[in-house]
Amino acid sequence: MITHENFATEPWQLRETALDLDVLAQSESVFAQSNGHLGWRGNLDEGEPHGLPGSYLNSVYASRPLPYAEAGYGYPESGQTTVNVTDGKVIRLLVDDHPFDLRYGELLAHERVLDFRTGVLSRSAEWTTPSGRTVRLTSHRMVSLAQRAVAAISYSVETVNGPATIAVQSELVANEQLPTASGDPRMAAAVESPLLPEEHYAHDTRLRLVHRTATSGQRVAVAADHIVRGPAGTAWAAESEPDVARLTVTATLEPGQRLELVKFVAYGWSAERSLPAVRDQVEGGLAGARTTGWQGLLDAQRACLDEFWSSADVEVEGDEEVQQAVRFGLFHLYQASARGERRPIPAKGLTGTGYDGHAFWDTESFVLPVLTHTAPYAVASALAWRHSTLPRALERARQLGLDGAAFPWRTINGDECSAYWPAGTVAFHVNADIAAAVERYVFATGDREFYRGPGLDLLVHTARLWRSLGHFDADGAFHIDGVTGPDEYSAIARDNLYTNAMARRNLRAAADAVSRHPDRAPDLGVGAEEVADWRNTAARTAIPYNQRLQVHEQSDGFTDQEPWDFDGTSEDQYPLLLHFPYFDLYRKQVVKQADLVLAMFTCPDEFTAEEKARNFAYYEQLTVRDSSLSACCQAVLAAETGHLRLAWAYTREAALMDLDDLEHNTRDGLHMASLAGTWIALVQGLGGLRRIRPAPETAPQDRPSGFPQAAGAEAPVRFAPRLPSSLTRLAFNIRVQERRIRIDLGRSTARYALLSGGPLTVLHHGTRVALTMDAPTDLPVPPAPDSPEPRQPKGRAPGT
Amino acid sequence: MITHENFATEPWQLRETALDLDVLAQSESVFAQSNGHLGWRGNLDEGEPHGLPGSYLNSVYASRPLPYAEAGYGYPESGQTTVNVTDGKVIRLLVDDHPFDLRYGELLAHERVLDFRTGVLSRSAEWTTPSGRTVRLTSHRMVSLAQRAVAAISYSVETVNGPATIAVQSELVANEQLPTASGDPRMAAAVESPLLPEEHYAHDTRLRLVHRTATSGQRVAVAADHIVRGPAGTAWAAESEPDVARLTVTATLEPGQRLELVKFVAYGWSAERSLPAVRDQVEGGLAGARTTGWQGLLDAQRACLDEFWSSADVEVEGDEEVQQAVRFGLFHLYQASARGERRPIPAKGLTGTGYDGHAFWDTESFVLPVLTHTAPYAVASALAWRHSTLPRALERARQLGLDGAAFPWRTINGDECSAYWPAGTVAFHVNADIAAAVERYVFATGDREFYRGPGLDLLVHTARLWRSLGHFDADGAFHIDGVTGPDEYSAIARDNLYTNAMARRNLRAAADAVSRHPDRAPDLGVGAEEVADWRNTAARTAIPYNQRLQVHEQSDGFTDQEPWDFDGTSEDQYPLLLHFPYFDLYRKQVVKQADLVLAMFTCPDEFTAEEKARNFAYYEQLTVRDSSLSACCQAVLAAETGHLRLAWAYTREAALMDLDDLEHNTRDGLHMASLAGTWIALVQGLGGLRRIRPAPETAPQDRPSGFPQAAGAEAPVRFAPRLPSSLTRLAFNIRVQERRIRIDLGRSTARYALLSGGPLTVLHHGTRVALTMDAPTDLPVPPAPDSPEPRQPKGRAPGT
Repeated sequence: MITHENFATEPWQLRETALDLDVLAQSESVFAQSNGHLGWRGNLDEGEPHGLPGSYLNSVYASRPLPYAEAGYGYPESGQTTVNVTDGKVIRLLVDDHPFDLRYGELLAHERVLDFRTGVLSRSAEWTTPSGRTVRLTSHRMVSLAQRAVAAISYSVETVNGPATIAVQSELVANEQLPTASGDPRMAAAVESPLLPEEHYAHDTRLRLVHRTATSGQRVAVAADHIVRGPAGTAWAAESEPDVARLTVTATLEPGQRLELVKFVAYGWSAERSLPAVRDQVEGGLAGARTTGWQGLLDAQRACLDEFWSSADVEVEGDEEVQQAVRFGLFHLYQASARGERRPIPAKGLTGTGYDGHAFWDTESFVLPVLTHTAPYAVASALAWRHSTLPRALERARQLGLDGAAFPWRTINGDECSAYWPAGTVAFHVNADIAAAVERYVFATGDREFYRGPGLDLLVHTARLWRSLGHFDADGAFHIDGVTGPDEYSAIARDNLYTNAMARRNLRAAADAVSRHPDRAPDLGVGAEEVADWRNTAARTAIPYNQRLQVHEQSDGFTDQEPWDFDGTSEDQYPLLLHFPYFDLYRKQVVKQADLVLAMFTCPDEFTAEEKARNFAYYEQLTVRDSSLSACCQAVLAAETGHLRLAWAYTREAALMDLDDLEHNTRDGLHMASLAGTWIALVQGLGGLRRIRPAPETAPQDRPSGFPQAAGAEAPVRFAPRLPSSLTRLAFNIRVQERRIRIDLGRSTARYALLSGGPLTVLHHGTRVALTMDAPTDLPVPPAPDSPEPRQPKGRAPGT
Repeated sequence: MITHENFATEPWQLRETALDLDVLAQSESVFAQSNGHLGWRGNLDEGEPHGLPGSYLNSVYASRPLPYAEAGYGYPESGQTTVNVTDGKVIRLLVDDHPFDLRYGELLAHERVLDFRTGVLSRSAEWTTPSGRTVRLTSHRMVSLAQRAVAAISYSVETVNGPATIAVQSELVANEQLPTASGDPRMAAAVESPLLPEEHYAHDTRLRLVHRTATSGQRVAVAADHIVRGPAGTAWAAESEPDVARLTVTATLEPGQRLELVKFVAYGWSAERSLPAVRDQVEGGLAGARTTGWQGLLDAQRACLDEFWSSADVEVEGDEEVQQAVRFGLFHLYQASARGERRPIPAKGLTGTGYDGHAFWDTESFVLPVLTHTAPYAVASALAWRHSTLPRALERARQLGLDGAAFPWRTINGDECSAYWPAGTVAFHVNADIAAAVERYVFATGDREFYRGPGLDLLVHTARLWRSLGHFDADGAFHIDGVTGPDEYSAIARDNLYTNAMARRNLRAAADAVSRHPDRAPDLGVGAEEVADWRNTAARTAIPYNQRLQVHEQSDGFTDQEPWDFDGTSEDQYPLLLHFPYFDLYRKQVVKQADLVLAMFTCPDEFTAEEKARNFAYYEQLTVRDSSLSACCQAVLAAETGHLRLAWAYTREAALMDLDDLEHNTRDGLHMASLAGTWIALVQGLGGLRRIRPAPETAPQDRPSGFPQAAGAEAPVRFAPRLPSSLTRLAFNIRVQERRIRIDLGRSTARYALLSGGPLTVLHHGTRVALTMDAPTDLPVPPAPDSPEPRQPKGRAPGT
């Protein structure tokens, strides 16, 4: 249910059929376009009205001092905030001197369509001026996936009911006025006038502005060129000032006549290169765009997306909304990452300023798992970015008195920007999440060069962090004290199970990686003693368990804490963090987002099936899902424990997070992790995809050579597919050990097809299945076990 | 060892014999004068040079927004900082047009003396101008203990080596320029130009300035009048501007002639009263001072101090430095509290801007215990201040989702000012500390009216806080999760033992108080059910203990944490909080200040003698004393466990904290708690004074009526006096159950004398001793048990 009446449910498009200014900011986010390098929000061509004007270049930011009323050692002194760079989208229109502004006159027709296969945002509008003249406007906009510096707009206006004098102003605008930020701590801090002018230029149909960011000294250049077509008498002139460059095109149109404009825009930035160098860079990009031409850009865009969808598409039959949502999500994930090229993938992509434009653990834990199967080169790029920040992470660890690397909780440039250490600095699990992303990528793609290079570096330095962070007790158990896990309603805990289990995984992955690349061990200073110590530490890492309740503990003592008073908490007191102090949330049993439940997903072999069922039921009653990261994880465990109705409800919640604006902050940008979560819920939840961990007892040298895989190598992954009653079919592709596999799942049968690579054995509901290229294999889907459905806190059950 | 060579060791004075500008700020703190209402730092008369100019009125403050890079629910929005109010001390001098400034010319002689019995700061100086003229200057300064609005200075100048033209400028100066604050988080935030002028006046010898604080709207008025005596030709003129009022006296002096000035200054402030009302208030105060006259003020000052010393003095034979230090400390405690009159006693008194002028738990836990025995009316006043802030504490508890009252961790006006909640909001023990101060005061003085009124209110509302903060586990034990105890190198712990033991004490004290005042129970809404619940909760409060190590735990799991690497920590890395992140301190076994050791002092009956010895030894090896609150507590437990050498080393450290500037921050003001700690170490450490808790099993109605006392009422207190080898005698008075007792302790004998009140039985080293007014009782002092002295972390043993 895409509840907003203006949006239609279609399999390959997001279509808006009427304009509601109250949800304009949300629509700007869902219609945002990006290639991972450049992002444009779906602002109206004419610039106003807007919810939040937004043009972003990945890693262009403002620095700001972080204020502390009471300072402390090791607190980050400087924060970073993504800034709205020069806006190249603006095309203003005057009709008989009336500014085309939808807040005046009368809007007769409106439609915007974002097509997931063409990668083009199309708009059509019919509007009558206050004096009665009606015009029809169409535009098509793209941020090029093929030419990463380039965006382009095809714009056309015609008059409907009589002659009109038309002026079109195509602009580059720097330092746009922004709406003031709200008091919500999740809103990005407002950054006003972030750009200092360096150069402006206008000639014929060409425009250019060069600025430097005021606080971080990054040089940003934007250039535009235009193709103008209009009736006889069409004229234009270009002019520029420090913060605006403008091409004004004028024409008098009779009905049936059109004024058409193609606008090519090129962006470039550098923290190092000179003004002439950056200027030439954008002029070069612009020349490339002109040469390709509008149709050429359209064709290349389509080609990129065809390639993506050929391996990424997920087919969902029985729920049109989820079918649309999973494609919407994959489309945006692809946009956020396709051309990132060693830059971060922020939590909101390049769709808004939410979370200050920072990247978090979400990227490695939610976004990269999906991209590993659908666009693996984007994973290599994102991990290369992490690797490029390794020197800062090593330095941060030194500052904190730790060995190895301590990657930041939130950042743009690699420096820690979290000013609240209980949920920032000590959320050390981000390091294990990065290590897991390395492991996962290598396992799926077999990228040898990455594994022996940046992958090994990341695994070794994160392993060293864990070893220095924890300690052995008198009984020989390894404990990690004073850390915060994924659940942000707990903090500074002993032995957070997710953290410990992921640290164990990290230590083993590092040991395996060193064993496989003994030639690189000397560079890293890793000897046999250290590797043996990692393995021993992993084997002895504490996993807290409450014997009386027969459930695992989210952290040591968690299950002894006072339960939250859910019955005394009203609907309007959610999210709890806006209505209760942290200390109260921290000391009680209340879970913001999947934590132990996430551990059961990412470290499935730490738990028996019975433990998973009991744990899931226990934590379900405590989990309030005040985070958009939660629903998809709960969907996965609900599916695994056989609660398919519940799994489906969580899947839909993850899928509709942004389309239905479930957290009321889609205006600030899309939730990349939740968009990824739709895929996760479908493929890893309903499909039951899990990697099988190599038996820890087996030293890697005893196993067949090659990449990490299950002992014996026969069954590196398992599936346990089952559909909820709402669905009739689910089909998707995955990558595993350099192979591609397609799973086509019906209500009673699952078909496995090996699309590429050598023969492979997988598990289907515990049964070994040998896959070859010869023919697909059909297997029956067993019914789910019958057990009572877990309950959620009052009022927090997922919608249906 | 008062190490600074300029200071002499004398029993009743602090004497400085040379001026060292490098320690000027420290000298201004130790020479500060106050009556608890008005405070003047010991700045030189001429204003400059200065370390930190300071004139303070208790509870006059600036408000400032507290900045948070990441905001949270319930974070205090506004902070308070004590401000430097109008300076009435300034008397500038010009000699032949040369400003008298010790940085120029030549200082031939200098002496300052603060006399603990007269309460006067006297100064003499002989100085030669750059042109060779020598003058002799003397001044005597007091802040009146008898007339709380009044301060006064007697000032005299004469020429030594020939005639000189003299100009004396006696001033009132508002918005003095202040030196900039350092980056040390403990330094007060600088507050510039805190006062807005409202009125200025000068006529004949009278001056007046009225201002309002810019941010908090408090009206501050200061008026001065002068008596001038000089040779024929002496003339004067008064003038005023918004921020300065000045009387200029000119005279030409021959050798042997003097110019003398008596300056009376009166202060007043109000947040409510009108300008005319506050003006009249200070004019009234000034008229009172004139009427009393300089000699009258001197006499009254002496009388106040005679009365104080008659019951407060502690005689120490064998260590002249500690003899001086304990009197220095008692003098400043008296100054900080004597005329506070329902205002707080800040951690630095009115001697500087350290800790922003805030009051903390230190007051109730360190300062009030001493004042209970030495100046009990000041305790009633300080607790009346707490009671006056009860509405804010009730509201704060509501905001935090708790019942009862949540008093602030740091405050001036009663609102929470701590911007770092892990060591502020959740240091809930401050509430039990307040309750204990109520209990202790009532026990000593028998103040019935206080007990049934504000005392009962405080006990009941703090008890309710504990009941709502904790919870019962499945085994029926009461736990308090997520709180921070006294040790600021641990935070957000489960079952901090100090907190739990003090909460238990609080719950029982509230139950006792309600049972004794059943008529007031309905006002407070307390029924029999609630009282029974408090007693049950107290009986079942968890006290963490490590069976394996046979020691109590500072908090649940503390003894399982990783030990701090003391051997790897260098001397220059102390205090640790400036060199290591909080998270690292919190998750390891390292103790900033007595916590469990403090619990053994304040709740002695929770522990056996063997447990105390084992616990003390265990925590000694972890305690680094990065807080000035620690040494005196360690002294007490060292004495109790028989380690007299160690007890004496800690006693000396507490005693010399400010005189030797052991923490290098005496410049910001004196450490009131450590000053109190000297008395605590001597009386409760070497004297072994403890109150005996009523047996909790005995319901109060079963005991004799009256005030809380031990079951059977025969022995409400116990002593276990023993002297270290350095001392030959220690004598002091205490108050207990409306009686005054004098203890005179020699190396082998302790003499107990009942000074007032009915017969009383006390315990002396476990032996019951009946005291009557008839004659003192002499008892032998048994030798200390012989056991190995506990060890401290590397480099952290107390000096000797």
